[in-house]
Amino acid sequence: MTDKILLEEQDILNAALAGDYSSSKSLITKLDHYLLSDDRELLREFFMRLHPADSAQVLELFTAEKACALIKFLDIEDQARIFNYLPANFEAQMAQILGRKELAKIVSAMSHDERADLFNRLSPDQQEEILPALAQAEREDIRKLASYPEDTAGSVMTSDYCALQPDITAREAIDKLRREAPDKETIYQSFVIDSQRKLLGVVSLRELLVASPGVKVKDIMNTQPIFGRAEDESEDIADIMAKYDLMALPIINGNDKLVGIVTFDDVHDIIEEEATEDFHKMGSISGHGESITGINFLQVSPWLLIQKRLPWLLALVFVNLLSGAGIAFFEDTIQAVVALVFFLPLLIASGGNAGAQSATLMVRAIATGDVQTKDWVRLLGREVGIAMFLGVGMALAVSFIGVFRAGPEVAVVVALTMMAVVLFGSLVGCLLPFLLTKFNLDPATASAPLITSIADVGGILIYFSIATWLLGIHSSM
Amino acid sequence: MTDKILLEEQDILNAALAGDYSSSKSLITKLDHYLLSDDRELLREFFMRLHPADSAQVLELFTAEKACALIKFLDIEDQARIFNYLPANFEAQMAQILGRKELAKIVSAMSHDERADLFNRLSPDQQEEILPALAQAEREDIRKLASYPEDTAGSVMTSDYCALQPDITAREAIDKLRREAPDKETIYQSFVIDSQRKLLGVVSLRELLVASPGVKVKDIMNTQPIFGRAEDESEDIADIMAKYDLMALPIINGNDKLVGIVTFDDVHDIIEEEATEDFHKMGSISGHGESITGINFLQVSPWLLIQKRLPWLLALVFVNLLSGAGIAFFEDTIQAVVALVFFLPLLIASGGNAGAQSATLMVRAIATGDVQTKDWVRLLGREVGIAMFLGVGMALAVSFIGVFRAGPEVAVVVALTMMAVVLFGSLVGCLLPFLLTKFNLDPATASAPLITSIADVGGILIYFSIATWLLGIHSSM
Repeated sequence: MTDKILLEEQDILNAALAGDYSSSKSLITKLDHYLLSDDRELLREFFMRLHPADSAQVLELFTAEKACALIKFLDIEDQARIFNYLPANFEAQMAQILGRKELAKIVSAMSHDERADLFNRLSPDQQEEILPALAQAEREDIRKLASYPEDTAGSVMTSDYCALQPDITAREAIDKLRREAPDKETIYQSFVIDSQRKLLGVVSLRELLVASPGVKVKDIMNTQPIFGRAEDESEDIADIMAKYDLMALPIINGNDKLVGIVTFDDVHDIIEEEATEDFHKMGSISGHGESITGINFLQVSPWLLIQKRLPWLLALVFVNLLSGAGIAFFEDTIQAVVALVFFLPLLIASGGNAGAQSATLMVRAIATGDVQTKDWVRLLGREVGIAMFLGVGMALAVSFIGVFRAGPEVAVVVALTMMAVVLFGSLVGCLLPFLLTKFNLDPATASAPLITSIADVGGILIYFSIATWLLGIHSSM
Repeated sequence: MTDKILLEEQDILNAALAGDYSSSKSLITKLDHYLLSDDRELLREFFMRLHPADSAQVLELFTAEKACALIKFLDIEDQARIFNYLPANFEAQMAQILGRKELAKIVSAMSHDERADLFNRLSPDQQEEILPALAQAEREDIRKLASYPEDTAGSVMTSDYCALQPDITAREAIDKLRREAPDKETIYQSFVIDSQRKLLGVVSLRELLVASPGVKVKDIMNTQPIFGRAEDESEDIADIMAKYDLMALPIINGNDKLVGIVTFDDVHDIIEEEATEDFHKMGSISGHGESITGINFLQVSPWLLIQKRLPWLLALVFVNLLSGAGIAFFEDTIQAVVALVFFLPLLIASGGNAGAQSATLMVRAIATGDVQTKDWVRLLGREVGIAMFLGVGMALAVSFIGVFRAGPEVAVVVALTMMAVVLFGSLVGCLLPFLLTKFNLDPATASAPLITSIADVGGILIYFSIATWLLGIHSSM
């Protein structure tokens, strides 16, 4: 009977984890039912069959209160394992509901980097409350890890790494790793330190296993290990680890002492978060102030989103006013040939689109490291060629529409303008990211909306200048 | 003397690896000099001190011919290690220069996934040429791995994993891993298979070490391991590995047989490539046809870039023609109050910008899995609130300009329009990605340029409708 229920549950569970709406609803109903009937055994069984990452995902379907009630029958170790996978803001909500002692027990069983992140999300009162309930070593560890600014190596590293003395043998080292295995983030990379905790080298479990058992650690370790510094940006740390395919990177502080390690699973999160940040900037969503990339998008407050969006919208108003000024300047031309206005949105939008394309390509290539500032001349050359070709293609397309709509004269103006604006937009889109980099600004500031707005201004000036000149309109200004 | 040279070299090298232009030039000159004087010892020493990833980066500064000459004095093993880190297209260029036998030797020493990728980049002639020079097992392995379509798990997995029989003891397993260590991608996760290569379970080296030596592998392995299928999309594989923090994921084929593993270092590349693809799509760069994300952006041919850009530019022309049609429809209104044209770019651009922002947020949130289709109602509600607020803020800003520029009547029109277009743009940007997902299209098709163009059309209709109505202009149409 129980097996049958569990089997049905499995299907619903899988669908719910994949994001199916009605399955999520059924799952909530089912677990609510267990909770109501206080069926500890079924609840425990349910969560014990799940990977802690899945348990965390299931808990997120509920309120923080219910989530606490759902897992309170599990062992502290298992609760801590689930906490390791919960998003920090939900975790903090649950922490507010748990009793001081229970929270302290979970915190002390969590992995060192995750618990420091959780600690940073607690209110000052809560922080004061749980610290006394922790052992002194844990207290200090949490305080230290939680003290590093966001987006630095220090803020993502963990302190539960394996440290070895240089003079022990490979056999002794393996024995030590075996004993420490349950409490360490990884035993596959060990970090060799002296009595001052200065980093002397790195040795992998693979090297220890392959070495003859009596050889000393210092004789097989890599004495020039790649390392990071606690104040380095987490993005740079992720780049290094991805470049050298590292499973774990040692992090040292200002005194060259080993203070933690960053592991490969952190790198995934960093790369994804950085990509999201760049993505947002490209859509002219401000990167300043409180981050919206570290938390689930559904949980971001509307007020925070307004703060991210309004400044750029307002700033772009000023660029767009220049477009208006350009139109005012050419009012006579427009009065003379109102038909020109028909092509205005098409022409300026095409320049903006071509510009957004080339800015997107450049910004991303700079972000991934494919392209460096020195490459600008080479890329500009390629861009000119591409833009000429695109411009001719677009000009051909619109000249037909031009002839049909407003006669051959306007068609020539429109075709020439199209070539010019596509070239103009593409060059702005290609160069602006480099210029920004040159002045130590973020290249992603060259967002699609900014490029589009600049292309609008340029497009208006180009269009009406060509029209005024070719159609022989005399300006009264 | 040599030490001094090496020390100077180190500084130049570090700067060159960080992308400094003049240091790269110096490094090229230095290595050119070694090459010219045929100084094997210095060349060998130079590359032996470098991580193979750095060696690969240095080689990329040169032509493929020179790159081959630079490393030809290294052992085959070391050459293969460098090849593992070279981008596939440069590697293929080098392969064309190397002799058949030498290439075969390098290929057979490379890691299994990297060599299959290289093989796929070779010309059919070259493929035919090197196959006979390889051992039969290698030939089959390469053919198998190279046969999976791009962007599938099969195309990124490697076949040099550790397989264990279920009935051996933990001690025997560790001994086997020790012996196989030099040839395997990882020894930290082993895959337990039966005589048909069916996947029975997974066991980590940590578990083997902690277990008592006499216990059987089958009694400590995880019998319900998370796995992928060879035909799964590599993006999904990366998501699974990131979610569960996996170091290696077993991949099975249609017959449930273990055919390879994907390791954590592949995940970095996949996440980065997927982010680049989405980034590009958001800038309306087509994702169809030959990929431009797998290779260095500097190496992408102009012709390929044109193919990626022109179709979207042309497609958007049609959307933009609707804007022209909208303007034509309101020609009388424009004739009556030409001052309205002054605000046109500002208003339609603001709608487009707000729309690009909300589309960017949605597309990325859908891509990272934060948001699912079922969330659309909830997000639409939030978006309406945000857009109302943004609209009011923007309306206040432009109403001042409106009064100053064209009097209170036009100011009211402009302010009302601003509120309406910001709301319109935001809602289009918020809903279009969901609509596309609903119809199984890529949400990132809701690119900034597409949203901008749609917002332009809507903005023109809204603006002149409000103006015609409020200013009491009688259309002759």
